[in-house]
Amino acid sequence: MKINILTLFPEMFDIFNHSIVGKAKEKGLIDIEAINIRDYTMNKHKKVDDYPYGGGAGMVMSAQPVVDAIRDSKKANKGKVIFLGPRGKTFDQKMAEELSKEEELIFLCGHYEGIDQRAFKEVDMEISLGDFVLTGGEMAAIPIIDSILRLIPGVLNKEESHQDESFSDGLLEYPQYTRPEVFEDERVPEVLLSGHHENIRKWRRLQSLLVTKERRNDLYKKVTLTKEDIKLLNSKK
Amino acid sequence: MKINILTLFPEMFDIFNHSIVGKAKEKGLIDIEAINIRDYTMNKHKKVDDYPYGGGAGMVMSAQPVVDAIRDSKKANKGKVIFLGPRGKTFDQKMAEELSKEEELIFLCGHYEGIDQRAFKEVDMEISLGDFVLTGGEMAAIPIIDSILRLIPGVLNKEESHQDESFSDGLLEYPQYTRPEVFEDERVPEVLLSGHHENIRKWRRLQSLLVTKERRNDLYKKVTLTKEDIKLLNSKK
Repeated sequence: MKINILTLFPEMFDIFNHSIVGKAKEKGLIDIEAINIRDYTMNKHKKVDDYPYGGGAGMVMSAQPVVDAIRDSKKANKGKVIFLGPRGKTFDQKMAEELSKEEELIFLCGHYEGIDQRAFKEVDMEISLGDFVLTGGEMAAIPIIDSILRLIPGVLNKEESHQDESFSDGLLEYPQYTRPEVFEDERVPEVLLSGHHENIRKWRRLQSLLVTKERRNDLYKKVTLTKEDIKLLNSKK
Repeated sequence: MKINILTLFPEMFDIFNHSIVGKAKEKGLIDIEAINIRDYTMNKHKKVDDYPYGGGAGMVMSAQPVVDAIRDSKKANKGKVIFLGPRGKTFDQKMAEELSKEEELIFLCGHYEGIDQRAFKEVDMEISLGDFVLTGGEMAAIPIIDSILRLIPGVLNKEESHQDESFSDGLLEYPQYTRPEVFEDERVPEVLLSGHHENIRKWRRLQSLLVTKERRNDLYKKVTLTKEDIKLLNSKK
């Protein structure tokens, strides 16, 4: 996948040189280019923002450098132009899965009080990370791009697999344990040591159901319980 | 505010050397220390993870290095220990405001398939960034810390003010415009050029109401409309 990121802080995206995404870049599975919007301003002082019409605190990013940066990226990247901001649709796993199937994407990161509304004619889609405010779109682009890229085949190796993970079946994940069997007087649940695959599967399913019900009843209500689920839940009562 | 971040990838937090948070660090308003969990492992090969009991794909972070890293941080940081993961409460602006009042915080970033459940006895609180999966807790810690820090007095200067921003009054923000008056044949809305403060305020309020209703009806339904709001909305019909 080819990703262009339009930002006033391209150096922030050095974060993608590390860990799983860093390895995927080295393998050539993904190509991430962070482009400085400031390089496109026609302002002689290299300014990219100005006071808002109508007054109020904060600065607004000018339309010209943003629009020109997008148009230049579009020459070599035919992907959707995605703006990160609070007015967008809230990002979730389903959106990550859909976007992971694209071959090219362009992300636009706003800063300060926002971007001149007239630049939005070049934007195809707005995504919000959640109901909170950030110093800039970069802070939303980073986890969103991470979440999309890890779904591309080959990016995760089998030790980092995304089977059985939270949200993939609408449930939160069951608790995990690793060696030693006893840690500070606390033992690993007996069933996990039993080698009985069917019992382990059932125990994990029950734990997933219970933790989702307790912590995220909103997700739990959307899950269609199987006959087995109901039996497992009843056995617990 | 003093923040300790426990992670396997401390170099990822170099991102906080830039932009607004970078300036706040220079001013001494905030102190961020990223600590490598690997430095605490007693494993002779410096391993921090192992296969999950009960089988399955992925590796699980061992309890020992995590618990020891937390306990060591607690010697100099009396803040809440916050784990970033999908089983936590979903982060929002209210949580950002509450946490911005703390003097010290410790963030724990998991990686791989999660952390041995027995390490959670040292955790005070779990926060989820949203309903999607990331390569590691670092990717959630970054925007969450950013969102908290910008609320600390002095971190934003008046050009980066957080008045009138999205979510502060339960509404999304109105559109912004800056110079020039005409950009590619599109004019700034007349009212913003009028200098009539009361009309500008009303126009912005109406735009906030309309965009919230259109894009986030879930938020809109929670807003208690004032008499003026109803009048503004009726004038539009």
